[in-house]
Amino acid sequence: MRAVRNVLFIMCDQLRADHLSCAGHPHLKTPNIDALARRGVLFPRAYVQSAVCGPSRMSFYTGRYMFSHGATWNRVPLSVREKTIGDYLRPAGMRVALAGKTHVLPDLDGLERYGIEAGSAFATLLRQGGFEELDRYDGHSPPGGESGYPAFLRRHGYRADDPWSEFVIAADGPDGETLSGWHMRNARLPARVQEAHSETAYMTDQALRFIEAQGDKPWFLHLSYVKPHWPYMAPAPYHALYGPQDCLVPNRSAAELEDQHPVLAAYRQHEESVSFSRPDGPATVRPTYMGLIAQIDDHLGRLFAAMERLGRFDDTLIVFTADHGDFLGDHWLGEKEIFYEEAVRVPFILVDPDPAAAAARGTVDRRFVEGVDVLPTVLDALGLPPARHLIEGRSLLPLTRPGAAAPAWRDAVFSELDYAFREARRLLGRHPRDCRAFMVRTERWKYVWWLDFPPQLFDLVEDPHEMADRGRDPGYAQVRDEMQARLFDWMRGRKTRVTVDDAYVEARTASHKKHGIFFGVW
Amino acid sequence: MRAVRNVLFIMCDQLRADHLSCAGHPHLKTPNIDALARRGVLFPRAYVQSAVCGPSRMSFYTGRYMFSHGATWNRVPLSVREKTIGDYLRPAGMRVALAGKTHVLPDLDGLERYGIEAGSAFATLLRQGGFEELDRYDGHSPPGGESGYPAFLRRHGYRADDPWSEFVIAADGPDGETLSGWHMRNARLPARVQEAHSETAYMTDQALRFIEAQGDKPWFLHLSYVKPHWPYMAPAPYHALYGPQDCLVPNRSAAELEDQHPVLAAYRQHEESVSFSRPDGPATVRPTYMGLIAQIDDHLGRLFAAMERLGRFDDTLIVFTADHGDFLGDHWLGEKEIFYEEAVRVPFILVDPDPAAAAARGTVDRRFVEGVDVLPTVLDALGLPPARHLIEGRSLLPLTRPGAAAPAWRDAVFSELDYAFREARRLLGRHPRDCRAFMVRTERWKYVWWLDFPPQLFDLVEDPHEMADRGRDPGYAQVRDEMQARLFDWMRGRKTRVTVDDAYVEARTASHKKHGIFFGVW
Repeated sequence: MRAVRNVLFIMCDQLRADHLSCAGHPHLKTPNIDALARRGVLFPRAYVQSAVCGPSRMSFYTGRYMFSHGATWNRVPLSVREKTIGDYLRPAGMRVALAGKTHVLPDLDGLERYGIEAGSAFATLLRQGGFEELDRYDGHSPPGGESGYPAFLRRHGYRADDPWSEFVIAADGPDGETLSGWHMRNARLPARVQEAHSETAYMTDQALRFIEAQGDKPWFLHLSYVKPHWPYMAPAPYHALYGPQDCLVPNRSAAELEDQHPVLAAYRQHEESVSFSRPDGPATVRPTYMGLIAQIDDHLGRLFAAMERLGRFDDTLIVFTADHGDFLGDHWLGEKEIFYEEAVRVPFILVDPDPAAAAARGTVDRRFVEGVDVLPTVLDALGLPPARHLIEGRSLLPLTRPGAAAPAWRDAVFSELDYAFREARRLLGRHPRDCRAFMVRTERWKYVWWLDFPPQLFDLVEDPHEMADRGRDPGYAQVRDEMQARLFDWMRGRKTRVTVDDAYVEARTASHKKHGIFFGVW
Repeated sequence: MRAVRNVLFIMCDQLRADHLSCAGHPHLKTPNIDALARRGVLFPRAYVQSAVCGPSRMSFYTGRYMFSHGATWNRVPLSVREKTIGDYLRPAGMRVALAGKTHVLPDLDGLERYGIEAGSAFATLLRQGGFEELDRYDGHSPPGGESGYPAFLRRHGYRADDPWSEFVIAADGPDGETLSGWHMRNARLPARVQEAHSETAYMTDQALRFIEAQGDKPWFLHLSYVKPHWPYMAPAPYHALYGPQDCLVPNRSAAELEDQHPVLAAYRQHEESVSFSRPDGPATVRPTYMGLIAQIDDHLGRLFAAMERLGRFDDTLIVFTADHGDFLGDHWLGEKEIFYEEAVRVPFILVDPDPAAAAARGTVDRRFVEGVDVLPTVLDALGLPPARHLIEGRSLLPLTRPGAAAPAWRDAVFSELDYAFREARRLLGRHPRDCRAFMVRTERWKYVWWLDFPPQLFDLVEDPHEMADRGRDPGYAQVRDEMQARLFDWMRGRKTRVTVDDAYVEARTASHKKHGIFFGVW
């Protein structure tokens, strides 16, 4: 009897790994997420495959690295030829539902090529990345779209063509004027929206309703919050839960601005980096960022109480993670994308209800995890075929359910970046095809290969804050060579034979004579 | 006024680069192909992207390396998401026709996934790799199928359920019994089929009929002969045109069998290698192989005479090449796949009718060409968009139409192998996913990287016959490192962003504010 019948895949948007109390934040309190960690395993060294929403999520959804799935940035649609979670779970009779954000874009070229009729059920599913959308809500988008949230706001009296801009990310100015959350200087003001009508509250309600309605029928739910992603504006009381004194000290030094790596120098000219590099930048935004996390934690408390009541903790595999972090001014950067720990490392909690996982509960496991591991873990837990010819991540169940011998585990993680769509490309005078970078991190080293620019290298033992780039230091040439060899080994392992699986190959190996082909016979 | 209106893409199957008189074969006469070379440019250093029919052809048809198109061996269908020649040319109003072999397999998983109705025009086109099949004929297949060839044979009195097996690849034994061309020992006997009814004659007729019927309407024709591929059996008089004294001396030495590379040792256990390694193996097969080439040459003479008469040499771009070579016992191997010159190097003639190409006519150009160059050359000649986000080859027109300055050109070529389907995998005890190899050759070096096995390295200046493998020689470590770095540079350059083109990226670079997204603003 398999314990796991359901899967709850919770994703926050732009949540840093170090912004949870169970992960060691000294002031931020996240008691419900901490309780979740006590039910499962906290993996403090989990890495995303690209520190950008779109490609990172596509790696979670496909189990494949960005180099394989090809959706290299937010505005690049995932090819309809890539299989996502729904392709694997739906044939097993499960509903594969979404409440919140996916960042999936329709592969219009692919849909047109296959003559798939717009509006057909299949076209809809492909456009949705294979999720059944309970309520798709990507945030920071114009009013309307798939989500019921704007209508919900209007029903609750937020009267405006665009209630999100007018109420959810807006605050009252001293003379009643509208101050927008798009402007970071306003981050510490309370949003006009009531907390009960906030994005986080609304989406939690969608999830609760689905889980309750499913009863004992198995389900997969991707609950995907758009917070604590910008616009940085929280409703009361969360806007004021924390103050500058509660924030982590910005991880940046004057030395970082000397002899800068060319790509970093370009990113530091981006408006978000300039704004966060102000002396008052981090202290203005971080308290609100923390408040938005505390708010998510409170709503997860509601969700978890319902799950407890319904007995769902006994039969539900739970993943809690994020698509990437947020610099919040660290390294003189805003946003994400660059390969520092603040952006590529994410929170990761895995709750495995199987009795075999009892011994691991409440532990912290420092082995490396990647976003591509979520799908194979889910397939493993549900007893579904592993599709090893496509999926490049690994099931984490050997870690939560340790047998007699510890499994051989990976000793490195990988991430990628395509900065073609960013202003940095223009600042550097580069072509859209020539903006690729690859990262490998091992226990000790983080190495970043940049096309046509020097590499970066950090010694994470001697320099855990990544202040000293050894990428051009002649004393580290051998380390760089070793890291480069690891990158090659990783890259050549991409799973390119996507049309047939391993069993197909096995059945047709050296089988020509069976097919009437007698070549080579004397 | 563009000179090129039509494209004739002639492919032979398993034709070695050194088996043409214009390429220096001392005895084989190919006057019509030689004449074609005098009309255009002979590229003696052209390489295929995998020395196996399927993946090599898919690279020709997509302009992409095997690592990108993913059809890693003969039995692996090309993903329906990959675009082929027809996708590029048909929107411009051209017929894109096939007479002969493609080795395209239907991507059944993809067709099913997209719900593309079997039998619909689009499904048919996808199953055909985007070609309009005048007559699809892959050879060595059961009777029936798409080709009209079996019916043609029956009409001409070859009465049998399988006239191909009974007449085309069969000879009379001394007592009237059937001796099969599948058995290499029979290679020097004349086939029962009359020459006028042979595969080569039949397929040339299909091409002639199409070109004549098109009149002045523009066309692309892939004339794709199944010869001189096995079964090695030629109709009279071609079975007896050449004798053992006319053949190239086998390129093999006893030293090659000492301290063998593990993968080569496994391939040498394959039946075709054992048969060709007999003392009488090469001398039995090679004369017939040469006869089959002479036969193709004669029929191309017919085709070229018709083109001359129709004025088609004035407005037709012509490519003559092969999908890979044939060891014929060289290096103690049969067949192809392994990265020696006999298998990865192919004949390559490009006839460019444009007046700007006049100076290059009749020249030999030793610059490196790859199979992936054919599609971009065709697009360039026809003035169609280059699709640089997908196509990985380069147009050869800067070589045939040299301007004031010589173009910067590639200094290396690349090829790949997946031996998962071969007996060698079982002999080596390997998994279907772990049978990949990559080759890079430069002016001087050929380096082959094998997963879990030592690399191979040949010095093509000192050792043009590839007799001395320096892959494990400590004296060559630095060369191997340089070659390894080239492989990484090649691999990381694969074009993975397949759903949107470069212009899309350019139009959306740093455009978030235009879309109402004001992140980073203070």
